[in-house]
Amino acid sequence: MSLDQVLQTAEVAFHTYKKTPAQVKATFLRAIATEIENLGDELLQVASQESNLPLARLTGERGRTMNQLKAFAELLEQGGWLEATIDPALPDRKPLPRPDLRRMLFPLGPVVVFGASNFPLAFSTAGGDSASALAAGCPVVYKEHPGHPKTSQLVFGAIQQALGSCGLPTGVFQHVSGGIEVGQELVKHPKTKAVAFTGSYKGGKAIFDQACQREQPIPVYAEMGSINPVFILPEKAEAETVTLAEQAAASVLMGVGQFCTCPGLVFYPQSQTTESFLDLLSQKLGESIGDKMLHEGISKNYYQGLTRLLAESGVETLVTAEEDVLTGHAALARTNVQEWLKNTALQEEVFGPFTLVVTYNDMAELEQAAEVLLGQLTCTIWGTTNELAEAGNLVDTVREKCGRLLFAGVPTGVEVSPAMTHGGPFPATSDSRSTSVGTNAIKRFARPITFQSAPQDLLPDELKDQNPLSIWRTVDGQFTKDPI
Amino acid sequence: MSLDQVLQTAEVAFHTYKKTPAQVKATFLRAIATEIENLGDELLQVASQESNLPLARLTGERGRTMNQLKAFAELLEQGGWLEATIDPALPDRKPLPRPDLRRMLFPLGPVVVFGASNFPLAFSTAGGDSASALAAGCPVVYKEHPGHPKTSQLVFGAIQQALGSCGLPTGVFQHVSGGIEVGQELVKHPKTKAVAFTGSYKGGKAIFDQACQREQPIPVYAEMGSINPVFILPEKAEAETVTLAEQAAASVLMGVGQFCTCPGLVFYPQSQTTESFLDLLSQKLGESIGDKMLHEGISKNYYQGLTRLLAESGVETLVTAEEDVLTGHAALARTNVQEWLKNTALQEEVFGPFTLVVTYNDMAELEQAAEVLLGQLTCTIWGTTNELAEAGNLVDTVREKCGRLLFAGVPTGVEVSPAMTHGGPFPATSDSRSTSVGTNAIKRFARPITFQSAPQDLLPDELKDQNPLSIWRTVDGQFTKDPI
Repeated sequence: MSLDQVLQTAEVAFHTYKKTPAQVKATFLRAIATEIENLGDELLQVASQESNLPLARLTGERGRTMNQLKAFAELLEQGGWLEATIDPALPDRKPLPRPDLRRMLFPLGPVVVFGASNFPLAFSTAGGDSASALAAGCPVVYKEHPGHPKTSQLVFGAIQQALGSCGLPTGVFQHVSGGIEVGQELVKHPKTKAVAFTGSYKGGKAIFDQACQREQPIPVYAEMGSINPVFILPEKAEAETVTLAEQAAASVLMGVGQFCTCPGLVFYPQSQTTESFLDLLSQKLGESIGDKMLHEGISKNYYQGLTRLLAESGVETLVTAEEDVLTGHAALARTNVQEWLKNTALQEEVFGPFTLVVTYNDMAELEQAAEVLLGQLTCTIWGTTNELAEAGNLVDTVREKCGRLLFAGVPTGVEVSPAMTHGGPFPATSDSRSTSVGTNAIKRFARPITFQSAPQDLLPDELKDQNPLSIWRTVDGQFTKDPI
Repeated sequence: MSLDQVLQTAEVAFHTYKKTPAQVKATFLRAIATEIENLGDELLQVASQESNLPLARLTGERGRTMNQLKAFAELLEQGGWLEATIDPALPDRKPLPRPDLRRMLFPLGPVVVFGASNFPLAFSTAGGDSASALAAGCPVVYKEHPGHPKTSQLVFGAIQQALGSCGLPTGVFQHVSGGIEVGQELVKHPKTKAVAFTGSYKGGKAIFDQACQREQPIPVYAEMGSINPVFILPEKAEAETVTLAEQAAASVLMGVGQFCTCPGLVFYPQSQTTESFLDLLSQKLGESIGDKMLHEGISKNYYQGLTRLLAESGVETLVTAEEDVLTGHAALARTNVQEWLKNTALQEEVFGPFTLVVTYNDMAELEQAAEVLLGQLTCTIWGTTNELAEAGNLVDTVREKCGRLLFAGVPTGVEVSPAMTHGGPFPATSDSRSTSVGTNAIKRFARPITFQSAPQDLLPDELKDQNPLSIWRTVDGQFTKDPI
């Protein structure tokens, strides 16, 4: 099938799928989860062979993938995400009567989803982007990630099974392979109504630019990475030097540093504990046995990025990583805020098990650094209760820079839940108004439509007087489940 | 002040304004309404002199402007718009504990608002875009529309009074005059975080393109007009020929056709009533006394657009409008679906009191026409109960093309209420996910941020355990006003 035929098929499927009741879509999403589980160990083994990720990690990732699908199924059954809103007619209002107005969210149409290299299950074929687009009622044209084609085919098979068992058209989910030009053609196709992407800044920005230049521009949700700064405040640093170094090291090393939320930048006070913190971090990173990275391209980029960054003025290497074809050895470097402020190249992401520690002299310097930070997926502030209470300015500045702000724990590990925001200001993502993790991800693929003076029969069930699905709605400005 | 200083000032004001409690912002919005009322008849007279709009219309528009401000004030007090969402910590969850996650919407930062020519009050200085941005917590840099500078200064004075009485910094609302290059500089400025615009396709698209090309792209909400097709179905046409012609004529003539929702395209069945419908419409439009348009540029564009469209192949002029320097005389033309399908130039908006009637032979032809329609703010389907019940395909297709779908009444007259969508697919707007009228307009200027494991003191009141503001929140996936 040509890509044009693929999008034609998606559009035809949209006619059916957009009218599919929420309950059927929920059943479909749960069926995908079941079919993925039915793939058993084969899926994990193939994924591990293709991605070099350990089986334990992939077992967890499979669970996460299934839970995501189930979370969206539940969301569909609850129906509140649709923002159903009704302003009943006021025929006697003066000077003018008010007509009956009923609004809710409707799916945008066919969505192109790009697979991510670093999550062969949870952010690929049946991952968060696909799950949220399907939940919204959008057919998905999935562009396989070349790093794990067999894994992708297996999961695609599971989705096809689920489509079959739910009696849905195969055009609801289509699977496409190919290089950059295939991706470009998909983004440019007039029938594509939105794009989701997780990957590099270069890749995401290219897609964004293409989408803007279309005759009819479309939304692009590109998650383009982040260096996830951690701000360690002085009292905390002194009180918990060892624990903080261990926490930071563990977060940097997790998954060979191949998480979008890997902390690649740590601000640490210049103080009597600085050297012990750095020594301990050096020790933890230095003694770690490097694991295989996802593929040779990732590994090559990692070492190239490292070489570039470590050569920057004012940067001192503390742990050297010997270049390897596939294994990602951890690395560590340090600089101080004044050097860091001079050079925006020190804000570029080095995707892998590396972090740059930036020492600062006082809160004024730290706030200066926060001011010039580019947009991030996460920022973390570690401070004692007392110093956090005093750090209003810093908290305020940092909040403007990120999608998620942590005050304890590490940024790696992204909960799939209603309150999650995995997003952030450009260049972390191309659309700071969205999240790609958690149930709110569904809203990326929908838009509001208002029915005015519509007969009951032409309204979707969600907007009918009787509220037959018993969902939360806003009626006359008030949340309620009551019928009209 | 240079434009750079203006944006600097806006950013400084943002530091204060984003932390201003909802109640104070609500008081501020109501104070603007009061100060506008205090301007009394002078405002109406000046606006009428500048815009040529009659006093009665402007009196209504002033009321609408004040009501918009009050509606946002009420929304702020209710707090539900913030989408406050809390997933409490689950420290004992296996295999991993869940951290405490709290999400809500936060303002984007300084917003540039462009005044609209056709609503000197309701979509200009203190109009819907400004009101929704201010309600969201964003400082506004308002670019005056050159068509009504004195009106704008009066309203700006009212806003300054309100800022003063509420003790808010003057940088929360700044007023800028100038030509296209001033607008461009505002859109390009790095401190600008979003743009709202109501006007022509050309103007809106230029702003959108600029915003995409920034080093850090920003959201643009450009409402770029629409031809608002009305689909009249056969039974309805036969049963109510006279009423429908009168309704259509009144809607076309309203405000000298200078509404974004003016119905510039009417599909009518080729039948025994076609000629009576056209005769009556011709009579109503022909006998109307043309009123002054907003300014000479609008009038010139109207007659140029008319001349262009009436010269298209297959278009027959039924009512000729004699060109005038300022007065907009109504015009009417007809064609049939086959001619219309051949020529996308017939979908271009002619902003003024004009409509094109397109006759069709059967529902298949009508559905074909709906298929090729570009994005619209509104679509209207007039049919009997029976034929609407049979028109599922048409309704379905038309729904994909618009932000608001009417089954009775006329598209002109846009209610300001929670269920309104004044938006639609490109090219009606640059962002179909948004509305520029109604309380949901506030969401254009906000983005979600999640706090993870934050101390209570660092949380905004809306996310604190006790729910001190008693707002609706989503806790563990359920709507509630309960404390944690």
